[in-house]
Amino acid sequence: MKSALTALGMLAELYFKRRPGCWKTPAVAVCLVLLAGLQAQDLQGHVSIILLGATGDLARKYLWQGLFQLYLDEVGKGYSFSFHGAALTSTKQGQEFVTKVLESLSCPEDVAPERCAELRGRFQQLSQYRRLRTSEDYMALSKDIEAQLQHEGLREAGRIFYFSVPPFAYADIARSMNSSCRPGPGAWLRVVLEKPFGHDRLSAQQLATELRSFFQEEEMYRVDHYLGKQAVAQILPFRDQNRKALDGLWNRHHVERVEIIMKETVDAEGRTSFYEEYGVIRDVLQNHLTEVLSLVAMELPYNVSSSGAVLQHKLQAFQALRGLHKDSAVLGQYQAYSGQVRQEQQKPDSFHSLTPTFAGILVHMDNLRWEGVPFILMSGKALDERVGYVRILFRNQAYCAQTEARWVADQSQCLPRQIVFYIGHGELGSPAVLVSRNLFRPSLPSESWKEVEGRPGLRLFGRPLSDFYAYSPVREQDAYSVLISHIFHGRKDSFITTENLLASWAFWTPLLDSLAYEAPRLYPGGAANGHLLDFEFTGTQVRFSQQQPEQLVPGPGSAPSPSDFQVLQSKYRDSPLISAWPEELIAKLADDIEATAMRAVRRFGEFHLALSGGSSPVPLFQQLATRHYGFPWAHTHLWLVDERCVPLRDPESNFQGLQAHLLQHVRVPYYNVHPMPVHLHQRLCAEEDQGAQMYASEISALVTNSSFDLVLLGMGTDGHTASLFPQSPAGLEGPQPVVLTRSPSKPHQRMSLSLPLINRARKVAILVMGRMKREITMLVSRVGHEPKKWPISGVLPSSGQLVWYMDYEAFLG
Amino acid sequence: MKSALTALGMLAELYFKRRPGCWKTPAVAVCLVLLAGLQAQDLQGHVSIILLGATGDLARKYLWQGLFQLYLDEVGKGYSFSFHGAALTSTKQGQEFVTKVLESLSCPEDVAPERCAELRGRFQQLSQYRRLRTSEDYMALSKDIEAQLQHEGLREAGRIFYFSVPPFAYADIARSMNSSCRPGPGAWLRVVLEKPFGHDRLSAQQLATELRSFFQEEEMYRVDHYLGKQAVAQILPFRDQNRKALDGLWNRHHVERVEIIMKETVDAEGRTSFYEEYGVIRDVLQNHLTEVLSLVAMELPYNVSSSGAVLQHKLQAFQALRGLHKDSAVLGQYQAYSGQVRQEQQKPDSFHSLTPTFAGILVHMDNLRWEGVPFILMSGKALDERVGYVRILFRNQAYCAQTEARWVADQSQCLPRQIVFYIGHGELGSPAVLVSRNLFRPSLPSESWKEVEGRPGLRLFGRPLSDFYAYSPVREQDAYSVLISHIFHGRKDSFITTENLLASWAFWTPLLDSLAYEAPRLYPGGAANGHLLDFEFTGTQVRFSQQQPEQLVPGPGSAPSPSDFQVLQSKYRDSPLISAWPEELIAKLADDIEATAMRAVRRFGEFHLALSGGSSPVPLFQQLATRHYGFPWAHTHLWLVDERCVPLRDPESNFQGLQAHLLQHVRVPYYNVHPMPVHLHQRLCAEEDQGAQMYASEISALVTNSSFDLVLLGMGTDGHTASLFPQSPAGLEGPQPVVLTRSPSKPHQRMSLSLPLINRARKVAILVMGRMKREITMLVSRVGHEPKKWPISGVLPSSGQLVWYMDYEAFLG
Repeated sequence: MKSALTALGMLAELYFKRRPGCWKTPAVAVCLVLLAGLQAQDLQGHVSIILLGATGDLARKYLWQGLFQLYLDEVGKGYSFSFHGAALTSTKQGQEFVTKVLESLSCPEDVAPERCAELRGRFQQLSQYRRLRTSEDYMALSKDIEAQLQHEGLREAGRIFYFSVPPFAYADIARSMNSSCRPGPGAWLRVVLEKPFGHDRLSAQQLATELRSFFQEEEMYRVDHYLGKQAVAQILPFRDQNRKALDGLWNRHHVERVEIIMKETVDAEGRTSFYEEYGVIRDVLQNHLTEVLSLVAMELPYNVSSSGAVLQHKLQAFQALRGLHKDSAVLGQYQAYSGQVRQEQQKPDSFHSLTPTFAGILVHMDNLRWEGVPFILMSGKALDERVGYVRILFRNQAYCAQTEARWVADQSQCLPRQIVFYIGHGELGSPAVLVSRNLFRPSLPSESWKEVEGRPGLRLFGRPLSDFYAYSPVREQDAYSVLISHIFHGRKDSFITTENLLASWAFWTPLLDSLAYEAPRLYPGGAANGHLLDFEFTGTQVRFSQQQPEQLVPGPGSAPSPSDFQVLQSKYRDSPLISAWPEELIAKLADDIEATAMRAVRRFGEFHLALSGGSSPVPLFQQLATRHYGFPWAHTHLWLVDERCVPLRDPESNFQGLQAHLLQHVRVPYYNVHPMPVHLHQRLCAEEDQGAQMYASEISALVTNSSFDLVLLGMGTDGHTASLFPQSPAGLEGPQPVVLTRSPSKPHQRMSLSLPLINRARKVAILVMGRMKREITMLVSRVGHEPKKWPISGVLPSSGQLVWYMDYEAFLG
Repeated sequence: MKSALTALGMLAELYFKRRPGCWKTPAVAVCLVLLAGLQAQDLQGHVSIILLGATGDLARKYLWQGLFQLYLDEVGKGYSFSFHGAALTSTKQGQEFVTKVLESLSCPEDVAPERCAELRGRFQQLSQYRRLRTSEDYMALSKDIEAQLQHEGLREAGRIFYFSVPPFAYADIARSMNSSCRPGPGAWLRVVLEKPFGHDRLSAQQLATELRSFFQEEEMYRVDHYLGKQAVAQILPFRDQNRKALDGLWNRHHVERVEIIMKETVDAEGRTSFYEEYGVIRDVLQNHLTEVLSLVAMELPYNVSSSGAVLQHKLQAFQALRGLHKDSAVLGQYQAYSGQVRQEQQKPDSFHSLTPTFAGILVHMDNLRWEGVPFILMSGKALDERVGYVRILFRNQAYCAQTEARWVADQSQCLPRQIVFYIGHGELGSPAVLVSRNLFRPSLPSESWKEVEGRPGLRLFGRPLSDFYAYSPVREQDAYSVLISHIFHGRKDSFITTENLLASWAFWTPLLDSLAYEAPRLYPGGAANGHLLDFEFTGTQVRFSQQQPEQLVPGPGSAPSPSDFQVLQSKYRDSPLISAWPEELIAKLADDIEATAMRAVRRFGEFHLALSGGSSPVPLFQQLATRHYGFPWAHTHLWLVDERCVPLRDPESNFQGLQAHLLQHVRVPYYNVHPMPVHLHQRLCAEEDQGAQMYASEISALVTNSSFDLVLLGMGTDGHTASLFPQSPAGLEGPQPVVLTRSPSKPHQRMSLSLPLINRARKVAILVMGRMKREITMLVSRVGHEPKKWPISGVLPSSGQLVWYMDYEAFLG
């Protein structure tokens, strides 16, 4: 090995050979500074940055500038650089484009113009355009880099490939790159990817799998440029620096709501071919706003500068997100949108888009910190102002003992208390962190954040600016510059890992699917929107505050929606039948169960409810858990109709479904919950453990006359009900109230209430949902009492009432 | 029987005989009207009203006027009346007093002065004073009434005895009355009682028992004059009339807080001999504000005019009140108070009163409707204004999509939404019902409530009056007039039943006890109070917003309070000892448990905690439930250290304590809760059911190495721990991990972890609290390892850690 000094000499020689212009500049001092930097240069090594899509819009607007900023920040710290702009464009055109972009690069405000020109010149010399099309081109690029390294005697530190290209191009580039352009041993590779990262969970998964065949997880840097916005990047450091003040406040006991908002005034004109495929949820909420949400909601790691800890806590936050449903969202579309799509994409006049350009979403988190706190995510185009912010509004938990006139001027605890990360634009016009003065004086790094000067008359979030401790960045930085620096320093927590990405899509995809055919509310755009887009929430449901107004223009023909239909009441097998679309059906069934419960509690002081497992009752459980706060849970006993012979906490267990979707959310006393004893003495449903007999005697001890107040059943496609199966005699007749049975499908072993016990109930409700059930529904409508062939046909309460609940798909097909 | 017509003739004759003045008045028409009324009079009968304490303050200010109003309202409806003012005062003085009062009676505004004079004159003729001292006096009164009835041929409808006398006089009067002055058969008796109704739970119970020896429950009418205030009396009818609009709103999902406020500007000067015994909580909160609370919070009966249903629902509301603790209250005392007491009661200069003249209390209800909603009760003397109101503030559950400047003027859903029952005084100056216009237009009975006229510039509760639908009574009525009418009509729901009274005292007494030696914060009075009395709450805890300021005058010497002392750390039996005042001790133990839990979950993914029963851990459970929201409950397994052989839901069961004080408030998954199986096959702790063995194998299956992460123990005064008792060998040694044992006290049969199993734990905490434990603490400090004499001395984790937690009373005595 050469000694460091020899190497320095060589480097200096090489350096001055390549850059003869240096001697010609009048500012000799500059060269001396660079020379001084060279000592470290050997230690850090050489970095090649390849910008793919170098002639694109993003590159022109932000990326070249970001690379220049990186150069300015890092070149004095011992790195050498080469910048390769690449694209499919011909070399000549590409070179012209790049030259033009490079000439327009700007320096920070504190750099004098002539100094800036000089730095820019040096950056230009390190930058070149080259066409990259075939894998040979990549091979050539790699050879050139290696040649340069060898020629200049540089150690390679790493290579950054910045994919500023559409996702369909990823695979080809990745393949070529992977096979021919990886850096040598000991040097790192970083591949930077720009959204979109898929269109839904499946496509994101596919894209991720494809990329993983070329790159290691740690090599990939998926950009969400919101994470580079200064106010967003400040969220975790702020939470960390103000840990003491926030520790007691940052939870459901103190936070009233969190608003995560990105409003735009522009519309999608000129971009509809992209926008029509994505819409506002995929464009803004699934990525930017969700990332911000995770930064606000996650448990704060002990060490916020540990990427690993941050990413892990972020994932945990995703896991705590409560699933969204159709009622979690309100959608809008500015009224010119469909016309723009027709024009830009040559669609017929009859075309109306269903793509939302506005969305308001209500998110809840199921953990102790945030349970019950509404997180409001909102974004839209063609709104009345451009602004982005995260606003944490704290509950008013004070009572001011004097008349309001006396306290309204002071920084009283009865005034609103809020923390706002102001992302940018809006009336303030710059990024900021705002903390109400009646909260606490926040600590921010004084080298990068300064107090905002007073602006009399400016009101933000209901209060004058003077009500806040307000800080803005000492130097405003573009998000891409921030992120390019983070890529360079390997700060992975500013990027989207595969796990993170898939977790986000897993969260959003069911909502996107359920909204696919919903007609958004049309809005005129700008100030004319009035209160049209205001929305309200109750529990987990959100809706526009104003009733649907007259259509402003002939709008998208709204598809028939469930509420257009009434609940039908008729007869099935001589018993009452209630039929409706799924949501109405579940709502009606939940109402009926509550009414039955209230009646039972009034008369007997308690309500005995036997529930079936499976997937059909899940929405029912959710409905009961979230919308029936008057339900007499404290007086309700919950029994199981049947159970699979698996441990209670097994995901297959019926009880586990009950726990996750109902018990978790309501307060049933422990001893009113009666899981079936399928797991005794560490064995499953062993005859000798007499679990069935135990359950039967528990029922007979607690349920008067062993008559449940309500038994909820389902019906299988083979006509089974509870865990009573055709051609298996157990439980269809005979004296045993609870029996062990065998299911044709796994897990085979089951425990079940018997038909005779079920038929003692005061009321039996049978819930049948989905197209799959149509055939059996038709068949069972015609058969008589043949429980051995179709156990469901044996359900006939001896003195109670039987009611069928079927959705239209099961009933009408 | 005489015919009605004959009777009418006789009555008319009698009537004119007794009231010859009638003919002399110029207004003959009046007599004709009265004559017309007589026809019904016979049907309804005669009512004698005996006002005891007729020369008192209350009688002078309100009661005589109320009786006059009753007379005006009812005399035309077929009743005849006689009014007997009674007191201990000599007949002459009493007569003079009554005559004077009667002369000052006023009529409603719409009655012309000369007509009023005439009516007053007639009322005077029906009213007379008599001295009532001995039981002979009562006998004489009764005879006089009977004679009058007979003489005038009247049927007796009933008698009302209005006790406007101090409670110590009740018994004598009641005895005399009961023995000699009850009405004849078929006529009712109503006894009206004025507060105070006791001083705490015990005294209220004694008083109630005493009264019940004289009167039936249905004969007693306990007055809380707040229930006669028009705005208060309107709460239930309002909820009923606006059922549809309120149905979805009147619950925890929509209500942010409820404020029940009574502010006074006057102080207690001249009344300190009463006030010093009672204080603001007994004077105002236990009765007036609690009654109002129950009207707001109770489930609305189907029929609000059914007294029975209303009273029953009210009681249920009381049952849902969460117990108060010292931290539920902030107390104040206006600074002149102690001086006034010294002066009025000839106390020495060194005397400082601890009686609060201001209290802010945070109340929660443990039911699904109100869980988590803060009910703020506040009252005080020498405040900045006189006003009373109930304010229901609804949550802001809207997001307004436009900049605030655009919506602040409209009736937007983002503006505050509130319903206020304005009891009186204040800036509005009259009773009112206010409903924010962005809520709904309320329905009120138009014959008795009218819209309030606009008053530009008047702001109430943060908004201009014009933001509300505002209604005030067509005719303002004094509370006593309203209540006297309700007594007359037997409307028991406007009065306090014995059950209701005792439930209220049961709720308040523990708080009063715990506050007995607390020094209230001194305040100067009036506007000078500034923010001194503002308070804030977190969870179930409330505290003044401002730190304790400099004492304004030498105040009551504040007793050393727990926070003046640090937590002590030392050694006991060679193990670490943590000692503090009870609150700090519990807080420290809860912190330590959480830290242990976090560590265990981080390392092993779960935390196995074995808890003891009894009363000592209750505050610990409450602490964990309400102040440790970060506790990893979802990963915690709860085990029992020991159990009494009673059913799980028996109040004696250790598990029941755990359920009520912990499980009810946190979310531990069902299958992580492990009660001891003391109740199998409908038997308690039968050897042959092998419950102990079952529990042991459950532990061995789930707890690695059967080593609990933490076992919490107590220590009995006999040195027992868990349910391991001296001189009873079971569980002190040997291979059985779980054993059946026998306690010297009831219930004798127990199940317990054995010493060897306990000693396998990673950590054992022993909590010892209270003066009762002092002797055993001293003793055990000196003994060696003698588990057969003192089982506690056998606690010595083989490889784990043992920590003692003792409060100062147990440790220092």
